[in-house]
Amino acid sequence: MENTTRRNFIKTAAAASTLPLVAKNIDSKPKAMKSIFVHHVFFWLKNPSSQADRDKLVEGLMTLTKIKHIKTWHIGVPAGTSREVIDGSYAISWLNTLKDRTAQDAYQIDPIHLAFVDNYKHLWEKVVVYDSIDAI
Amino acid sequence: MENTTRRNFIKTAAAASTLPLVAKNIDSKPKAMKSIFVHHVFFWLKNPSSQADRDKLVEGLMTLTKIKHIKTWHIGVPAGTSREVIDGSYAISWLNTLKDRTAQDAYQIDPIHLAFVDNYKHLWEKVVVYDSIDAI
Repeated sequence: MENTTRRNFIKTAAAASTLPLVAKNIDSKPKAMKSIFVHHVFFWLKNPSSQADRDKLVEGLMTLTKIKHIKTWHIGVPAGTSREVIDGSYAISWLNTLKDRTAQDAYQIDPIHLAFVDNYKHLWEKVVVYDSIDAI
Repeated sequence: MENTTRRNFIKTAAAASTLPLVAKNIDSKPKAMKSIFVHHVFFWLKNPSSQADRDKLVEGLMTLTKIKHIKTWHIGVPAGTSREVIDGSYAISWLNTLKDRTAQDAYQIDPIHLAFVDNYKHLWEKVVVYDSIDAI
């Protein structure tokens, strides 16, 4: 290896090795989730006071986390905030992001999703779903 | 630089430079969002058919993306899905994730948030907020 070439290679390799650090710095600023499909589901249970039913629904939602069309997911409970505009009456929330509408359509008919509805729908009394795509 | 040392340095630097590729492979599986506070807001406008009012609200929400307590954010519109359980009647959605309840409380009283409410609240007729923390 000629001397200048070697020096340039080392410089390039060293620059590449700092990429994870740069990425970490960028992550500390609010990060836009762009070009995604947001699917947010809120469940109200037939027996809202039953911890067993909540646990069972969470168990069911965990099966959905294996569906390959999903990019990111969160299983939630009300955060305990209580301003006038807040609806904290649901029992369990299920948030996921997907690439686009095509991925969401595929998710809906995925065998894992169909089995979830069949096996756990006896638990809920009401479901409200909000689907969103990028506004800008 | 002695020859073996130099070879080891190049090997290490080269290995480090492949990290972004490894991270990309991991990201292709559904990824849990854990230890977060999810804040999802849905806005119904006084003039839902006014594109100018929608644009104005999006402009306002964009100011919120500078609030340092936010980790990730998404400004949405209904995705056009239409099953019975889907509520697609809102005009604009505003999703963000934060570290925890403390960060959400700080976000609520951040001057940028207070200015947003003051400057844009004339646009909306109804707001519904869902706050969630990890169920498991």
